[in-house]
Amino acid sequence: MGQEDQRRVAIPPPQPFVKSLKNTLKETFFPDDPLRQFKNQPPRRKFILGLQYLFPIIEWGPKYNLNLFKSDLIAGITIASLAIPQGISYAKLANLPPILGLYSSFVPPLIYAIMGSSKDLAVGTVAVGSLLTASMLSDVVNVNENPKLYLHLAFTATFFTGLFEAALGIFRLGFIVEFLSHATIVGFMGGAATVVSLQQLKGILGLDHFTSATDVVSVMRSVFSQRHKWRWESAVLGIGFLFYLLLSRYFSKKKPKLFWISAMAPLTSVVLGTLLVYLTHAEKHGIQVIGDLKKGINPLSITDLEFGSAYLTTAIKTGIVTGLIALAEGIAVGRSFAMYKNYNIDGNKEMIAFGMMNIAGSCTSCYLTSGPFSRSAVNVNAGCKTAVSNIVMAIAVMITLLFLTPLFHYTPLVVLSSIIVGAMLGLIDYEAAIHLWHIDKFDFLVCMSAYVGVVFTNIEIGLIMAVGLSLLRLLLFIARPRTLVLGNIPGSKIYRNVDQYPNTNNVSGVLVLEIDGPIYFANSSYLRERISRWIDDEEDRLKSSGETSLQYVILDMSAIGNIDTSGISMLEEVKKILDRRELKLGLVNPVAEVMKKMNNSKFIEKIGQEWIFLTVEDAVEACNFMLHTYKPKSATDESEMHSNNV
Amino acid sequence: MGQEDQRRVAIPPPQPFVKSLKNTLKETFFPDDPLRQFKNQPPRRKFILGLQYLFPIIEWGPKYNLNLFKSDLIAGITIASLAIPQGISYAKLANLPPILGLYSSFVPPLIYAIMGSSKDLAVGTVAVGSLLTASMLSDVVNVNENPKLYLHLAFTATFFTGLFEAALGIFRLGFIVEFLSHATIVGFMGGAATVVSLQQLKGILGLDHFTSATDVVSVMRSVFSQRHKWRWESAVLGIGFLFYLLLSRYFSKKKPKLFWISAMAPLTSVVLGTLLVYLTHAEKHGIQVIGDLKKGINPLSITDLEFGSAYLTTAIKTGIVTGLIALAEGIAVGRSFAMYKNYNIDGNKEMIAFGMMNIAGSCTSCYLTSGPFSRSAVNVNAGCKTAVSNIVMAIAVMITLLFLTPLFHYTPLVVLSSIIVGAMLGLIDYEAAIHLWHIDKFDFLVCMSAYVGVVFTNIEIGLIMAVGLSLLRLLLFIARPRTLVLGNIPGSKIYRNVDQYPNTNNVSGVLVLEIDGPIYFANSSYLRERISRWIDDEEDRLKSSGETSLQYVILDMSAIGNIDTSGISMLEEVKKILDRRELKLGLVNPVAEVMKKMNNSKFIEKIGQEWIFLTVEDAVEACNFMLHTYKPKSATDESEMHSNNV
Repeated sequence: MGQEDQRRVAIPPPQPFVKSLKNTLKETFFPDDPLRQFKNQPPRRKFILGLQYLFPIIEWGPKYNLNLFKSDLIAGITIASLAIPQGISYAKLANLPPILGLYSSFVPPLIYAIMGSSKDLAVGTVAVGSLLTASMLSDVVNVNENPKLYLHLAFTATFFTGLFEAALGIFRLGFIVEFLSHATIVGFMGGAATVVSLQQLKGILGLDHFTSATDVVSVMRSVFSQRHKWRWESAVLGIGFLFYLLLSRYFSKKKPKLFWISAMAPLTSVVLGTLLVYLTHAEKHGIQVIGDLKKGINPLSITDLEFGSAYLTTAIKTGIVTGLIALAEGIAVGRSFAMYKNYNIDGNKEMIAFGMMNIAGSCTSCYLTSGPFSRSAVNVNAGCKTAVSNIVMAIAVMITLLFLTPLFHYTPLVVLSSIIVGAMLGLIDYEAAIHLWHIDKFDFLVCMSAYVGVVFTNIEIGLIMAVGLSLLRLLLFIARPRTLVLGNIPGSKIYRNVDQYPNTNNVSGVLVLEIDGPIYFANSSYLRERISRWIDDEEDRLKSSGETSLQYVILDMSAIGNIDTSGISMLEEVKKILDRRELKLGLVNPVAEVMKKMNNSKFIEKIGQEWIFLTVEDAVEACNFMLHTYKPKSATDESEMHSNNV
Repeated sequence: MGQEDQRRVAIPPPQPFVKSLKNTLKETFFPDDPLRQFKNQPPRRKFILGLQYLFPIIEWGPKYNLNLFKSDLIAGITIASLAIPQGISYAKLANLPPILGLYSSFVPPLIYAIMGSSKDLAVGTVAVGSLLTASMLSDVVNVNENPKLYLHLAFTATFFTGLFEAALGIFRLGFIVEFLSHATIVGFMGGAATVVSLQQLKGILGLDHFTSATDVVSVMRSVFSQRHKWRWESAVLGIGFLFYLLLSRYFSKKKPKLFWISAMAPLTSVVLGTLLVYLTHAEKHGIQVIGDLKKGINPLSITDLEFGSAYLTTAIKTGIVTGLIALAEGIAVGRSFAMYKNYNIDGNKEMIAFGMMNIAGSCTSCYLTSGPFSRSAVNVNAGCKTAVSNIVMAIAVMITLLFLTPLFHYTPLVVLSSIIVGAMLGLIDYEAAIHLWHIDKFDFLVCMSAYVGVVFTNIEIGLIMAVGLSLLRLLLFIARPRTLVLGNIPGSKIYRNVDQYPNTNNVSGVLVLEIDGPIYFANSSYLRERISRWIDDEEDRLKSSGETSLQYVILDMSAIGNIDTSGISMLEEVKKILDRRELKLGLVNPVAEVMKKMNNSKFIEKIGQEWIFLTVEDAVEACNFMLHTYKPKSATDESEMHSNNV
């Protein structure tokens, strides 16, 4: 037995509580070890590193050169040509004055260029965020009756978006965003894109009145109840431009070098549409136009923030919900391009940048901004190298604001609708949904429930359903961990699940079980029942096949990552059940945390440390040794003999 | 390489979706396999088994005999002597007429005796449930202004309690109760007992007016602001009886044979107190008494259920919350005595019994009943054998209702307060809290937050805090799984965590990592970062010690119970990161589920099936083989050579 002693599971030495707490907190909040580079540096260097951490432009700015600028200039102008029509369209979607879309493409990109760490993100307003703002604020304020209050609430909500995002980053709570799974986002985005597209039927059919609900049933009812008001001129124009936009995207996809055709298409549509209306005076024949846009850059709006308003809670709620969605999109977009181009993005740092850009935006007549996927993809395709492309875009938008706004007077609304629908159809990622179905049915279910929830009820309920289902899955994983029977792989001393490796052999008289998850209060009753059932099944099987009766139950604890007091009680109960059935219990390879708690609760004393083994092999050998040496009548006698011997 | 092929991880054959879904549903809702005994039985037998399943009395009734009855008779009379004063006290606690406490000890125990499967549970009203009913209903109806509506709402809430409990049982959702962990219940019960005791200051000090809030600050303020109204006669009587009750409990604990002293103490207190008031006419000197109690058994109350009331939602909410708490207590009590006496209890079946007893109760002037711990413990101590002790108690209570109620006219309220405080002090289980602290600090935190929440805010908030924290812990386990570095245990081919087994050796050029939990969306970003950090750390370590540079990263996947699409993406990203760093990735022992998903997503093709090993030993050997055979300049060259060779 001497040799075996080396192969025991030792009880880990007690660790000071404070140390283990510190460790846990570090893993929870600083998994990326952001202070690593500060280690062993002189104070001056630490200060500079700290500044660079907050303002990455200090780091890459000095290395900037003309070659990089050439690329960024082209990319910047390209995204500006997309930003201007999209900005105006999305502002309409948010029930806000169109000019706000342009304002929002001026200040926030500048802030992001200074503070952001992505080289590829193009900052601007986002369709889903715009619609969400509209739907949440319209619940409390009618935009037609009180446009000023509505506008101020939008600024206030944006302020809270910024505050919330920055706070998440500063307190390193960025991982909250990770609870929005990829499946949730695919379904949610697809649903939101569908809903946004349906809303555009108003513009495309030239309707004056429209439902404020977003679900497909209400929208369709609203559309078809007004059949006599449909305007064919508007519809023809809208469908024509939509066709043009989709065609240009199709060609760009075929030949990636022609990406600029698709990137410029919205601006060309606006120019063509505007010219058409101007020349034919279609605005007098039922084609609605944007009308006057104020010249000049962003006016300050810091005094418009309504902290004393009765609707403050709505503004806060809107800010948080839209902020979360905007973050999820922005961070995901930044990360995927960073992964593609092989550099790192610090999620928490990005959140601070997003937060500051929205706080600054809310004070300068901007509303919710993030890093929309479509614009960023165009940015990358156009060859952007650094965040300078955002600065170029901002300057182009500024020039537009200062000099070119009158040109948009005759721009028909229907073109804006076509641009939105064109952008949205690209967001319905049915291929991703099919991919989910192939890999993981539950993820597909989450995705579909988000989609159906958004399309048939409303955006918030869809999101809550999907997040709820995702969390339920995590809880269900813990509530119902898998228990597996292990068998011996022939010709080896390896024990593996008998279902996965069908050629394994049972060990006579020994049942080897593995539990595939932590033991917590939520599953301790289940596991107790399930273990009993495995033993029943095994005894039935042995009885019917006439083999040796069951004597030992070995529990492989390798995969039990943690245990709580309910789990310890469960083990004690299992021990009692086995005692009553005259079976002996052996444990295999408990991890340090589990070993510590079993020791603190004196459970190790109860089963005897000699019944804790390092490997299943050791445990089975020990059982075989006892079975064949003593050939006892009952397991209890034998164990007594054994313990007397030791 | 031929020999190694036997030791590969096979890709599991595809399973029909419906079959795996059926399996999952079975494990989730029928883990105890309740239909096992119905298998292979003739239809007639199946019908009888089904009846026995619903009404266990059919099973044990025929075997009942006189010996058993003798024991049950004594136990039944003992618990009746406790049930009568406790019933009256708890009804006062719920702001209900005292007679309801007696009604509630008559009908529900009879129902439970027929349908329940515990032999030890004594049915009756519960203190915490009573207080909770009072606090939730008083939010909407003032009991002094509208006692009839309040009473009807209490019946309605009880009806919904029953409906909710029965539904949980029928739909096999009993596991919801398991989300109330032991730590939560200890803290919650302790807090509730403290709050209930504090409420008794009203009775003990003989105050007329009292705050309706339950938190310690409000209660203390209310008590001390009325210092001039304190009545010393009442206080002396109350403290005297409390002292007597605690003393009798102390003796019973010392000598378990004298349990009946403690069990009878409440009734003796009532008799003594009543006599004292009757003889001294203390009711005219500021001692409040119960007053008239109606003679006769339970009147029907089915017409009093207020389904059309404006307060229906409050009744439903109260019913569900109190039902959950009552179930948690009742099931836990039933289970622990069953465990102690070595028989099984089916949680879902118990819930149906609890539900039916509350539904029946709500139609016969009873309010919320469950299986209180104190009364059940007395039942067991008094030697009960079957649920017949509940029938005996019900008959004793019936006789009281029919003939003895006038005797309670002069019973002083202060005695009831003392009885409640005496019972409550036994529920503050500080030893359990200390036990939690020793075993699991987080469980202690959950327990304390439940206690503090209940005592300082209110009962519902305390409960929500504790449940929220418990769930947070589960989510945190998934969000931050442990990653471990494995090393070789000298003289063996076993690989274990280097922190837990400090004498392990590193393998030069190979980093072996283990992930201690499932890979889901909630942790995929974390794990990616964490794995990068482990590699950074290892490279730093190797650089500073001048050892061979890192070439291989081996991921032990044994403890990864499941993976979703985000997890698969994470693995793909890790593979990319490693490629970029010119490191090779090997996987060890993925479980069937993980293997299946890696195969569906073509990840296995990407890393090559020859890089998936059955054991860490195999993986390390393969790496060593390649390291020493080719001695390549870079890992990429080597892998190309290797794959050409194969």
